[in-house]
Amino acid sequence: MIGPLEELVEALCSLPSIGRKSAWRLALHLMERPEDEAVSLAESIISVRRKVKHCSRCFNFSENELCPVCSSQSRDQSLVCIVEKPADVFAIEKSGRYRGTFHVLGGVLSPLNGITADKLRISELKARIGKEQIRELIVGLGGSADAEATAIYLARLFRNDNVRVTRLARGLPAGMELEYVDQITLSQALCERTDMQYGKE
Amino acid sequence: MIGPLEELVEALCSLPSIGRKSAWRLALHLMERPEDEAVSLAESIISVRRKVKHCSRCFNFSENELCPVCSSQSRDQSLVCIVEKPADVFAIEKSGRYRGTFHVLGGVLSPLNGITADKLRISELKARIGKEQIRELIVGLGGSADAEATAIYLARLFRNDNVRVTRLARGLPAGMELEYVDQITLSQALCERTDMQYGKE
Repeated sequence: MIGPLEELVEALCSLPSIGRKSAWRLALHLMERPEDEAVSLAESIISVRRKVKHCSRCFNFSENELCPVCSSQSRDQSLVCIVEKPADVFAIEKSGRYRGTFHVLGGVLSPLNGITADKLRISELKARIGKEQIRELIVGLGGSADAEATAIYLARLFRNDNVRVTRLARGLPAGMELEYVDQITLSQALCERTDMQYGKE
Repeated sequence: MIGPLEELVEALCSLPSIGRKSAWRLALHLMERPEDEAVSLAESIISVRRKVKHCSRCFNFSENELCPVCSSQSRDQSLVCIVEKPADVFAIEKSGRYRGTFHVLGGVLSPLNGITADKLRISELKARIGKEQIRELIVGLGGSADAEATAIYLARLFRNDNVRVTRLARGLPAGMELEYVDQITLSQALCERTDMQYGKE
């Protein structure tokens, strides 16, 4: 017999990085706290799904037709960073250094897993390039083989579109000791080494 | 401006061992999965609070007036293990070795924090001893100073009640290397050492 407590544990188990033991602890916590605290969490989950949709231009999460980035006057609308998923938008926004806009692909190409170009928001990107005054596309995909292949696919796709296609720099992560850096990262950091201009005229 | 996504992150942050980073990951996961999966988690939380109440006898979680342990014919109703909270009942049940029933105190005495005997379910336990045929009380509280004090308080309280009061054995945890065991545990394991009867008649 499965009771409501076990059902809740099962539902919590399906969340990322929540095992059975954590799920039990969370479920018992939700039972022990005041009822309105538990109900308010449940309502937040429902409300986030009801209110938060996708921006019609960049496909980031948004409560309105256009997300705050797309509707902002202070963002450079001619600069578009292509990312895989909304979490990547949050990561880049947190850096505080990016003043352009985004385009959320919804994944990367992975033909073996059935993810072909028509499964991603590539035609929407193509349409944006035709319609908007886009000057540069920054490919902000990850470092997996699929992501690299997607980056190359996009660069080829837009080569005749009079738009500059760049990608995020590859090299040493901040604060990393050289001896712990993997060989591929080190090779890339060597290949793409930059000139040090400090102190020169 | 705080949107629904930030509200959900705040609610998730209040859960035990969920920090801001995990809360963001969980919230984005709930946005990316099919909507019914997120809604079903929310409904589980509400349902667990609506359906699961306290057993009227032992105060463990229960969907009915009496919990499965209290209403079971195969459990020894004359044996009562006193625990702090429902999670402790689950822990003992998981060991699979206990055939008695429980009494959930709802905490341990902690006068400095305002938790006096009347805040716990001690009068309810006293009433059970008068009403039910209870032969033995096993004090199954933790090892904190407050828990030890509560154990002594209970042993004194019931000394004239014609009921045996015992407590869980203290000693080495299973699989622990001797060199890593703390001094108090080692002292207790020494004091409460048991005879080895194997091979004797």
